[in-house]
Amino acid sequence: MYEELLRLRHSALSSQLPASSIGGQFATASRNGDSMAAPRLDWGHERLRRRVQDGIREVRFMLNGQLAKLRKELSEKRPSASEIDGRLEGLAESVNEIIRLVGVEGEALAEAGGAADWRRRRLSRLQTELVNRIVKLQNPQQCQSAKKLICNLNKGCGFGCQAHHVLYCMTLAYATGRTFVLDSVNWRYSRGGWTSVFEPLSKTCTERGSAGAKQWGSTGAEDAQLVEVPIIDAMAHKPPYLPQAIPADLYEELSGLHGNPFVWFAGVLLNYIMRPNAAFQRQLDDNAIRLGFAKPIVGVQVRRTDKIGSEAAFHDISEYMVWVEEFYKTYELRHGRPDKMRILLATDDANLLNEAARRYPAYTFLSDTSSSRSASVRDRYSDGGLRGVISDVLLLSKTDYLVCTFSSQVCRLAYELMQVGRDDSSDRFHSLDDVYYFGGQLPLEVTARFAHKARDSSELDLSPGDVIGLAGNHWDGYSLGQSRRLGRNGLFPAYKTELVVRKAEMRPGL
Amino acid sequence: MYEELLRLRHSALSSQLPASSIGGQFATASRNGDSMAAPRLDWGHERLRRRVQDGIREVRFMLNGQLAKLRKELSEKRPSASEIDGRLEGLAESVNEIIRLVGVEGEALAEAGGAADWRRRRLSRLQTELVNRIVKLQNPQQCQSAKKLICNLNKGCGFGCQAHHVLYCMTLAYATGRTFVLDSVNWRYSRGGWTSVFEPLSKTCTERGSAGAKQWGSTGAEDAQLVEVPIIDAMAHKPPYLPQAIPADLYEELSGLHGNPFVWFAGVLLNYIMRPNAAFQRQLDDNAIRLGFAKPIVGVQVRRTDKIGSEAAFHDISEYMVWVEEFYKTYELRHGRPDKMRILLATDDANLLNEAARRYPAYTFLSDTSSSRSASVRDRYSDGGLRGVISDVLLLSKTDYLVCTFSSQVCRLAYELMQVGRDDSSDRFHSLDDVYYFGGQLPLEVTARFAHKARDSSELDLSPGDVIGLAGNHWDGYSLGQSRRLGRNGLFPAYKTELVVRKAEMRPGL
Repeated sequence: MYEELLRLRHSALSSQLPASSIGGQFATASRNGDSMAAPRLDWGHERLRRRVQDGIREVRFMLNGQLAKLRKELSEKRPSASEIDGRLEGLAESVNEIIRLVGVEGEALAEAGGAADWRRRRLSRLQTELVNRIVKLQNPQQCQSAKKLICNLNKGCGFGCQAHHVLYCMTLAYATGRTFVLDSVNWRYSRGGWTSVFEPLSKTCTERGSAGAKQWGSTGAEDAQLVEVPIIDAMAHKPPYLPQAIPADLYEELSGLHGNPFVWFAGVLLNYIMRPNAAFQRQLDDNAIRLGFAKPIVGVQVRRTDKIGSEAAFHDISEYMVWVEEFYKTYELRHGRPDKMRILLATDDANLLNEAARRYPAYTFLSDTSSSRSASVRDRYSDGGLRGVISDVLLLSKTDYLVCTFSSQVCRLAYELMQVGRDDSSDRFHSLDDVYYFGGQLPLEVTARFAHKARDSSELDLSPGDVIGLAGNHWDGYSLGQSRRLGRNGLFPAYKTELVVRKAEMRPGL
Repeated sequence: MYEELLRLRHSALSSQLPASSIGGQFATASRNGDSMAAPRLDWGHERLRRRVQDGIREVRFMLNGQLAKLRKELSEKRPSASEIDGRLEGLAESVNEIIRLVGVEGEALAEAGGAADWRRRRLSRLQTELVNRIVKLQNPQQCQSAKKLICNLNKGCGFGCQAHHVLYCMTLAYATGRTFVLDSVNWRYSRGGWTSVFEPLSKTCTERGSAGAKQWGSTGAEDAQLVEVPIIDAMAHKPPYLPQAIPADLYEELSGLHGNPFVWFAGVLLNYIMRPNAAFQRQLDDNAIRLGFAKPIVGVQVRRTDKIGSEAAFHDISEYMVWVEEFYKTYELRHGRPDKMRILLATDDANLLNEAARRYPAYTFLSDTSSSRSASVRDRYSDGGLRGVISDVLLLSKTDYLVCTFSSQVCRLAYELMQVGRDDSSDRFHSLDDVYYFGGQLPLEVTARFAHKARDSSELDLSPGDVIGLAGNHWDGYSLGQSRRLGRNGLFPAYKTELVVRKAEMRPGL
């Protein structure tokens, strides 16, 4: 099972397609016999589409029917508060059940007629092209004289944050056509530096050389051979290719194929950056086999210890389990009862596994307790701690669904890596707190697709086309943000808006 | 506007495609350049599909978020019954609004990438083929010696019921390869008989001839030259090709293209049967123009007078208007504000137009008051009454959406005719009472797609595959029926089941 996953990942990386095959417009895909051509609608698709439309109607019938009944009872019988509460619970159950079924048909519709395979093939071709460009950029003909971008790995934070720092540097290098040189001397995690666990970022060009480096943004830095980059938080002027921008030449295809193009782009770059070296890969594989990693499996990451009270709130395991249960209910409707209901539990709280296993005996918990222990505050910055957190991230990224807090860098890292080598997996998560973001990013914005009339002073009016700076999602149908038009903050129905996918010219110079 | 509709209908009928083009499997449609080939998925389709899936999730977030808030308030603040009622109303509004938006995206998805045109083209080809077969069957080489099926038009009921009687006879003729001869002497509506308003059912063969006729079902009837058919209600043994069966050779394509294949089949046959003659057509066209018939328009048929208390319950105009309002809300989201919100009001209650116009001043009511008056019990069975009801039916069938009671034959007749010359329009109605049925039909059944656990003694358990005889739909998420497996009646969530589409060998003998 796990071996199969690895094979899939490797084959996606090694299949070499000509660079010219990228960015092909959709129209070019309609040639006959082209494996990249989109599938045609078929009867199965049509039946499922109608089922989804029926379902939307039935959800309304069910909701309104139940509410009307309840309101009638309320006016006639004056039930007690606890009776009303029971009725509301029953209503929630029956309507949720129908919504779940409609969701199941929606999932099937997404895959009908080979559409899932088609998207996977096209995403895989895009990935190959992107990785080819990076490999070329990272292995210049003349390393000595190549223009380089230098980053120091030692951002003062944990591994997830550092990996995002490296990703940010790689994005700048890609956008400006520079070879990225990572300086990992005195890494807080390992005296061996980056290559103690990962492949080097270049086979031929990993040294900065002897020339003096200019600071990013300083006079003459653009043309300098060596440029040193600050952490994203210290950037004075933010260029348009910072996260969450994607390369403009991938925009059309990628935003057609994927629900969150930047997350895919980040995942592909991170998948290149974080290639375990051979020795570590063996260790990871052994570890996965020892844990019994197999599908189906839900990844749950519970971030506690140091972050609680400062960066994030405490969430009881039951809050995570709501979404795990939902995943398995849906899974069973589509695929029948699974052999086991697995949960990969990654946490820095060494006691949580016992608690979870005791409270949820129907589930099979897989957890690397050594990584929990080494993730505790005392042992975190060690070779063991490093290997533990990487192992957690990679395993989480291979699950079918992620439940975690996007306030956690590890959670977001796993979500990014999850996109690689699959069909669009942008909706295979539930975050208990934040929306997906990239620390230090350009403003995250949504646009209104439908009008909204504020119902009280806490809400925003929306007009189609309004741009709203997104601050968060309450996951109760409402998001919070700042209307650029009105210049004020407020709540608005999330579904009336859609994410603005930023695109920027990036010139790897190939 | 109306002229355009007529042109469309005529061109659909007159385009002649070779008979061999029918029943083509889906696979044969994939040849390049074939206008019958299904469209490929495109980026627009993919974006809309994701929007629908997002929407299903957001409906859940919204519902559960609002319910959780309300339950918390209930336990903390003990609000009054009227406060709770207000909150429930607010909840219904906000969740319904999101569901409506998801429905709008679902509609757009159905039409994405030219899919609506594609379905219309294929349905039009099927229609042409079916009509060609009927024309051939109705115009035999040797009328004298042709095998014939004879029906008497004078079923003791109103026009809608008689039209369905003729449809039933036509179906039997089609299924058994006989030329259908309609005996309309002494028609209760008109001394001129059928051809006083309609084209004859054959150009060459409308007389029964002099031979003696056998009664349908009697010994030797199968091989007899002339067979006389009783009304459907008097049939002792029901053959498998009675309504709601469709011809087996159309089954695959038709059930792929259309949400309710029998209704389409009935509509195509009725559209052939009810071809107004030239003089009547001019009258109908003048009438439509005089009424100001134009799109968008919702058809509302309110059946009162003789049926109230016996066959049907009284429904206030406000019950119909809920669905008209819903149609226009959805319309505006997709197409912007219409020039007018038209309602074609067909009723036998001559006072209703004034009442409706007074209570709903935002709408433009089109109503043929002379047909209301002539539909009153006293004047019904007259030439004027006949022309009035036919005009109502045909106009109703040309609206964008129908709101009526399926207990009414006129309502079902309009719904059947509505399917002709369009994209799948099986969901363009709301019935205030019955589900769609055909009087005297073979048992109407649904099968369970998902399991259901009865929550009280009023409900049925369902296992996937269970067959349930359908008795009705409460339009509140629940249907009523008889489980064949359990041998008992009960309620079950409608969405967990799907309609069984009957197919039967029908041999027009061509």
